[in-house]
Amino acid sequence: MTAYEIISKKRDGLSLTDDEIKFFINDFVTGDIPEYQMSAFLMAIYFQGMSSSEITALTQAYIHSGQVIDLSHISGKKVDKHSTGGVGDKVSIIIAPIVAAAGGCVPMISGRGLGHTGGTLDKLESIPGFKIDYDVETFIKKLANIGTCLIGQTSELAPADKKIYALRDVTATVPSVPLIAASIMSKKIAEGIDALVLDVKVGSGAFMPDKNSARELAKTLIRIGEDNGKTTIAYLTDMMHPLGKAVGNWLEIEECIECLKGKQTGPLMDLSHQLAGAMIYLAGRTNDIEQGIEISKNMVADGSAWKKFLEITESQEGDISYLEHPRKYPKAKYSKTFSATSTGWLDNIDALEVGLCSVQLGAGRQKVTDRIDPSAGIIFHVQRGEKVQKGAPVFSIYTNKENTLDIIFKRLEKAVHISATEMSTSPIILDYLDKNDLD
Amino acid sequence: MTAYEIISKKRDGLSLTDDEIKFFINDFVTGDIPEYQMSAFLMAIYFQGMSSSEITALTQAYIHSGQVIDLSHISGKKVDKHSTGGVGDKVSIIIAPIVAAAGGCVPMISGRGLGHTGGTLDKLESIPGFKIDYDVETFIKKLANIGTCLIGQTSELAPADKKIYALRDVTATVPSVPLIAASIMSKKIAEGIDALVLDVKVGSGAFMPDKNSARELAKTLIRIGEDNGKTTIAYLTDMMHPLGKAVGNWLEIEECIECLKGKQTGPLMDLSHQLAGAMIYLAGRTNDIEQGIEISKNMVADGSAWKKFLEITESQEGDISYLEHPRKYPKAKYSKTFSATSTGWLDNIDALEVGLCSVQLGAGRQKVTDRIDPSAGIIFHVQRGEKVQKGAPVFSIYTNKENTLDIIFKRLEKAVHISATEMSTSPIILDYLDKNDLD
Repeated sequence: MTAYEIISKKRDGLSLTDDEIKFFINDFVTGDIPEYQMSAFLMAIYFQGMSSSEITALTQAYIHSGQVIDLSHISGKKVDKHSTGGVGDKVSIIIAPIVAAAGGCVPMISGRGLGHTGGTLDKLESIPGFKIDYDVETFIKKLANIGTCLIGQTSELAPADKKIYALRDVTATVPSVPLIAASIMSKKIAEGIDALVLDVKVGSGAFMPDKNSARELAKTLIRIGEDNGKTTIAYLTDMMHPLGKAVGNWLEIEECIECLKGKQTGPLMDLSHQLAGAMIYLAGRTNDIEQGIEISKNMVADGSAWKKFLEITESQEGDISYLEHPRKYPKAKYSKTFSATSTGWLDNIDALEVGLCSVQLGAGRQKVTDRIDPSAGIIFHVQRGEKVQKGAPVFSIYTNKENTLDIIFKRLEKAVHISATEMSTSPIILDYLDKNDLD
Repeated sequence: MTAYEIISKKRDGLSLTDDEIKFFINDFVTGDIPEYQMSAFLMAIYFQGMSSSEITALTQAYIHSGQVIDLSHISGKKVDKHSTGGVGDKVSIIIAPIVAAAGGCVPMISGRGLGHTGGTLDKLESIPGFKIDYDVETFIKKLANIGTCLIGQTSELAPADKKIYALRDVTATVPSVPLIAASIMSKKIAEGIDALVLDVKVGSGAFMPDKNSARELAKTLIRIGEDNGKTTIAYLTDMMHPLGKAVGNWLEIEECIECLKGKQTGPLMDLSHQLAGAMIYLAGRTNDIEQGIEISKNMVADGSAWKKFLEITESQEGDISYLEHPRKYPKAKYSKTFSATSTGWLDNIDALEVGLCSVQLGAGRQKVTDRIDPSAGIIFHVQRGEKVQKGAPVFSIYTNKENTLDIIFKRLEKAVHISATEMSTSPIILDYLDKNDLD
């Protein structure tokens, strides 16, 4: 068995054995297989795909390249949520406190933003002092105390995935279902969960542009989860439009504060309650998801979720005074507001274009080494489908890059359309899948 | 323009511009683009192919990564031949002396054997003292003196190709028409030729298994040559069966001696005269290829070609006493001869199987770093289609690896079949193409 033979087999569309996949991953981690062979292998997988059993073997190889966290000494079922990434998606930061407040245990290992999509870690780090790089031992301790802990991928968990992801990122081999599936599920399985709720985004702002391909990805992820003894369910949700009102790191934290204080309604809260409700159900706190949703709403209404968010922030060394008094947060130097030129209803907002604009403003990364500006981004003053009066503010942009302000303002003007007639808005949740949907 | 964007474009099947290809190749040669990005790019090319204009740009980028030899001070047209590689293909060593004896100028930069196919350089190096690693200046001097010089790829010529070929070899990206075409033609164009005769092999022992794919490769090569102002013609020739009687380095030199002394007839000499005749015509020595073939036969018949071979060997520091007295060459320690178990006609001999067996005997390489045993190999005492009497020798194998002898003997017994009835043999030359065959 040589790396060359395994690359050739995949190139020619043949199925690899478990041993061949294990050998390739293990020897790459030890450095015995060089990066140039791995990148040729990844591109061959991009073109030839992988069978279910190959994806399972790949996920196993990723998991066993590192530590699997044991949370069995914490009572109750541990539940996490994973989103495939979108624009304005701050749901994790809203539902982790909700589910923890409801008595669930939520071990949450998140990612950073890249390209037009944001990342939970970058958003949390915009809270002054907030730490996301605890070791596994501290992670477990905080999780047991607070009911949740939100950190980044540590070097102990699925190091093979970490090393391979860095290579995929520079060799144009990220958008491959088997590689995405193994990457997501290995990290989730290694974090010690019992159950997982997936939020698979569909639309221009997502990796999956249409519902069929999103369904296939969801089924692949559910199969891996269930094969590994983790109850796994998936929602397909809309990502044609940005989620919520804010795009940009601290701006999204401010929106989370509003949400957790019960001051926001609309698609973001609908989705948050659905996902939190499912997690509360999977944690064994209720008999069905609907009851879970009721509890989720109660946790917001009675202030428990907001209180839990402050607890989490304190536990992770963040300065809660910024959450209690968001106005003291330093503002971006430059801002500009677009006002409606006619009265009408806010129509489509292209999520991809909004995501790309927010990167240009400084809120995201084009390369992994780019630095994030936490105060940069976009705020929509009205949500899609809502009525806006002529002269009323529609959106504002915030940046510390003077030259960028007018360029992005003009781009966003074109991405936003006000309709003369009221239109029906599509639902945020498009579909639900679980193990009963596997072929 | 970034390496990532160019890999993505090729991955998605879009056409690359000349500038994008030039940038990728140049920055790889300087080390600014790492090997892992090049290997992903090569695998994307393997799957998506390249258009004619992309292949032309790739070839140009290879050529201009190094020196282009100027042979304009040597009078007459310079002509070379290139074969896509086969089993027992020693034609270069036969026709370089023939064409040079006929007054042609043959600058010949050859390759080494890898896998089941042999290489001209390894065969020449089996002649004690024969050198193939002259620098360009010495190469030109010897070429002007003798009419031909046979060397290996120097670091001055198409260094991009050399660096990329080494990477293709370990990433399973060798069998790709655009990559093969640019690799072959860049070296030939850089060596300063005016015209080129291509021998595109078809069959089990060749890269191209069928005539259609071989025609496509031939047309691609002709287009590049003609675009660069080099008259380029191609023969498709049979590689279902080994070429000639000997497979193995010194054994093939012995066969060349017989051929150049006029002692051998059959497919090998038919092909050699055809290719040499075409080269003599393209060198401007005759009005058509037929006249060239006549001259080629005369060069063998009157001893000029044999004399020229001795001159070449002396010029390249080889010991001609071994050519004059081949029996003094050290024999392999172990040999075994297969005798016919019935009277009949020698039927199909599988070229791939013979090639693989010769590698096992020590005559070839499985890895680039393997050492060649010059005395190892296989000799067929009868050629395909010839009658053999019961008990007469059919083939002998030679090796210095005692354990290998019987294993390979048994494999080859199965690869050789003696037919009870006489059968018609297919011609060695299957087709001819030149610029008039381009679409």
